[in-house]
Amino acid sequence: MTKPEAKDLSHHLSVEARSRKNSPLKSAFKYYNLPGMTFLGGGLPLADYFPFDSISADVPTAPFANGIGAQITKDDKTVVEVHKRKEFNSKDISDVELSRALQYGHTEGQPEILNFLKEHTEMVHKLPYSDWDLISSVGNTQSWDATLRTFCSRGDSILVEEYSFSSALETAHAQGVNTIPVQMDSEGIVPKLLATQLDQWVGAKPKFIYTICTGQNPTGSSLSAERRKEIYEIAVKHDILIIEDEPYYFLQMETYTSDVSARSKKAVHSHEEFLKAMVPSFLSIDIEGRVIRLDSFSKVLAPGLRFGWIVGQKNLLERYTRLHEVSIQCPSGFTQSLTNGLLQRWGQSGYLDWLIGLRSEYTHKRDVAIDAIAKFFPKEITEYVPPVAGMFFTTGFDASKHPKFEEFGRDPLKVEAALYERGLEQGCLMIPGSWFKSQGETTPKQPEVPTATSPNHIFFRGTYAAVPLDALTVGLEKFGKAVELEFGL
Amino acid sequence: MTKPEAKDLSHHLSVEARSRKNSPLKSAFKYYNLPGMTFLGGGLPLADYFPFDSISADVPTAPFANGIGAQITKDDKTVVEVHKRKEFNSKDISDVELSRALQYGHTEGQPEILNFLKEHTEMVHKLPYSDWDLISSVGNTQSWDATLRTFCSRGDSILVEEYSFSSALETAHAQGVNTIPVQMDSEGIVPKLLATQLDQWVGAKPKFIYTICTGQNPTGSSLSAERRKEIYEIAVKHDILIIEDEPYYFLQMETYTSDVSARSKKAVHSHEEFLKAMVPSFLSIDIEGRVIRLDSFSKVLAPGLRFGWIVGQKNLLERYTRLHEVSIQCPSGFTQSLTNGLLQRWGQSGYLDWLIGLRSEYTHKRDVAIDAIAKFFPKEITEYVPPVAGMFFTTGFDASKHPKFEEFGRDPLKVEAALYERGLEQGCLMIPGSWFKSQGETTPKQPEVPTATSPNHIFFRGTYAAVPLDALTVGLEKFGKAVELEFGL
Repeated sequence: MTKPEAKDLSHHLSVEARSRKNSPLKSAFKYYNLPGMTFLGGGLPLADYFPFDSISADVPTAPFANGIGAQITKDDKTVVEVHKRKEFNSKDISDVELSRALQYGHTEGQPEILNFLKEHTEMVHKLPYSDWDLISSVGNTQSWDATLRTFCSRGDSILVEEYSFSSALETAHAQGVNTIPVQMDSEGIVPKLLATQLDQWVGAKPKFIYTICTGQNPTGSSLSAERRKEIYEIAVKHDILIIEDEPYYFLQMETYTSDVSARSKKAVHSHEEFLKAMVPSFLSIDIEGRVIRLDSFSKVLAPGLRFGWIVGQKNLLERYTRLHEVSIQCPSGFTQSLTNGLLQRWGQSGYLDWLIGLRSEYTHKRDVAIDAIAKFFPKEITEYVPPVAGMFFTTGFDASKHPKFEEFGRDPLKVEAALYERGLEQGCLMIPGSWFKSQGETTPKQPEVPTATSPNHIFFRGTYAAVPLDALTVGLEKFGKAVELEFGL
Repeated sequence: MTKPEAKDLSHHLSVEARSRKNSPLKSAFKYYNLPGMTFLGGGLPLADYFPFDSISADVPTAPFANGIGAQITKDDKTVVEVHKRKEFNSKDISDVELSRALQYGHTEGQPEILNFLKEHTEMVHKLPYSDWDLISSVGNTQSWDATLRTFCSRGDSILVEEYSFSSALETAHAQGVNTIPVQMDSEGIVPKLLATQLDQWVGAKPKFIYTICTGQNPTGSSLSAERRKEIYEIAVKHDILIIEDEPYYFLQMETYTSDVSARSKKAVHSHEEFLKAMVPSFLSIDIEGRVIRLDSFSKVLAPGLRFGWIVGQKNLLERYTRLHEVSIQCPSGFTQSLTNGLLQRWGQSGYLDWLIGLRSEYTHKRDVAIDAIAKFFPKEITEYVPPVAGMFFTTGFDASKHPKFEEFGRDPLKVEAALYERGLEQGCLMIPGSWFKSQGETTPKQPEVPTATSPNHIFFRGTYAAVPLDALTVGLEKFGKAVELEFGL
């Protein structure tokens, strides 16, 4: 069965994206390397003058029998070695030689690493339309900036999760884009309320909905397959795009159980089990080419690679490429040669092994955090949903139960601030949820939408990612104590 | 003598740059690493899960006795080795360990490489004011994009060289910024005409003047010290900024002489001679903090490092940093660790040796190109000025001398197109000058400025950078033949 082609959605492009022209110099480049032609057209430095003759990296060997965090030993390491000249590189491996990686060109990314990622993407997401593509970026922060530049002009509106990554909201604000919140509950965006919001929308529709749908920052929530389908249908109905920002997608875990003995039985082992356990992405249900997916190695390999990729329909990605040509150009050549070198040596199979290893590590961290909350936080007042993905958990409280709620003028934010300070006093810092609250509004204002949570609900975001496990337990014991003291329990 | 502080020029900031806010999360980060505090605030992955345990690179050893293009041998190489953990790194060298380089943070760049570049910048440019700073970027293309975002709003005007890098012009156009040409002659911008243009300016003044002042792309011209001073004074008078885009600054050469035997005598050898031979930058005469300098390793080490840096007054650079936090974040960690590792091992002295080596290579390439033009191009009709910097040379012609000039309706562009095609037919491609022509205009139009060159002047841009020397000579012989054929000589 041949897959359908993406729908033409170019009417969503921003003024800036529409007005980009191809460089006239491009027409000359067809003569580059033509036999008999002396090409004096391009200002490229000779690779002879690149001072890096070869680079190498020591990396662990798949399938990581001792876990992905184990110290590499002499007997258990793979060496990624990449030379300036192609002829010195391994004949069996598709490396990106430095004379190419460190030269101008390949704005979309080097073909070897793009091919690896396309194969991986097809395996994980099985896109239902034919003319999709994948280009590199320097990480999701930049992909998000490029997305806003590509689709939004000053004064446009977008939909965002009611609580969202504050830096992502700030990116939009500075560009003059209104970030209109969509109601969430503990499982993320509530489709019914999104439908109401768009059905009663006044004025120019929002350009797209921006969602960190798996292991959401800050709430730790993950959208179920059912909700994704409903949201997709709403996006189709109202002709808006979906931007899925998915740095945490591969930090999906086993579901939490308080029964310690049952935990080991839940772990996935085979590649097939692992792929099946992944929640379906928006990309995987996108029959129209309406989804732009922002993907990244930051949480999976390392943030400092500054390598992300954008998946979506070819026609829209072409506009990103024109933007990248006149801004970032492409990710670092070292990053491309070394990361590609790593992936080619691990293979698709070894990369899945790495992701399975990550899943196991994060499941364990999450378990330790939730165990500590269950143990140290006062049960009668603490709300929490064990996350199934990502780096974050939240603990929620009913601010009206605070003894000084009346004295605070019934202001839940004052309760939140008091608890934050009490946490610091006890020696544990978690971030107040209100710091992530999206505040945008259109002019004129949109009609009210029912709220999914009580106005007195407050929450704090914590992470289990960056903290040693014993410190995590100690920290949560301290914050639990702060809750007790503050709520007079 | 204490240096003066920069003038407050914040009124030049764009709407976007003004509206950027600090993240509230920043206030929490002061508690990071505080004794007794469990910090659950940040979503950083553990360095244990970075699969890169150590990286290394083979680079040539300063002072590059056999030239900078010589093949590295076993006996003549320096190994840059950087480990994940600080304790495994060399104790005598300021390396950037991978656990830091590959983690989030340090938007401005890693301190070690910034310090090296600041010391280098002070040595070369001796800035006359005190509160200057330097931050990293992912190359001048991105620095330029960030500069436009930081100072220009849609509808603003900027001044650019009449012929400029077409990709840089395109960046401005897509952002809705008008690029108004400034008259040039064979030595670059003509200060007197710039003064006239600004004195008679109608409406909102341009935000800044953008200049590739050394080895200009496409004309190959370089502004003299005198012209730079005059232009700076004009910028002060009219309160406009100067953006100096200087990727070719260290591709300055000896002046050309046709006397081959005299060439070797002209080469600089000592660091002192070398630094003295550099044309003074706008930065070096900037007493007000009115100059933003865009600098890069692309032409000096390799384009694929994607590492540039921006020099200017602290207050203005802070706005770039806020932009970088929500876009590129910072250059690749591999790039920072390896490039810093290289520079720390070479030292300031070794880096100057490298630049002296580059000077010698480019002088030789330029000489070969100019020798070939002198030999193969018809003298009676070819105008050329041997460049003193950069990768480009131009050959100019009086279109009115073309036999079909009348038949072409006295249109010099038709002569240019005919000569381009004739070049291709003969087997040599050079880029028509009109492809770089800046076309912007304001509404209402500005009063006419006298032109510095004849309207019938056409030119072609060639490069000696990317071509082996024998091919360069052969190519120019072919283009010389094309000129003869086209002009009926």
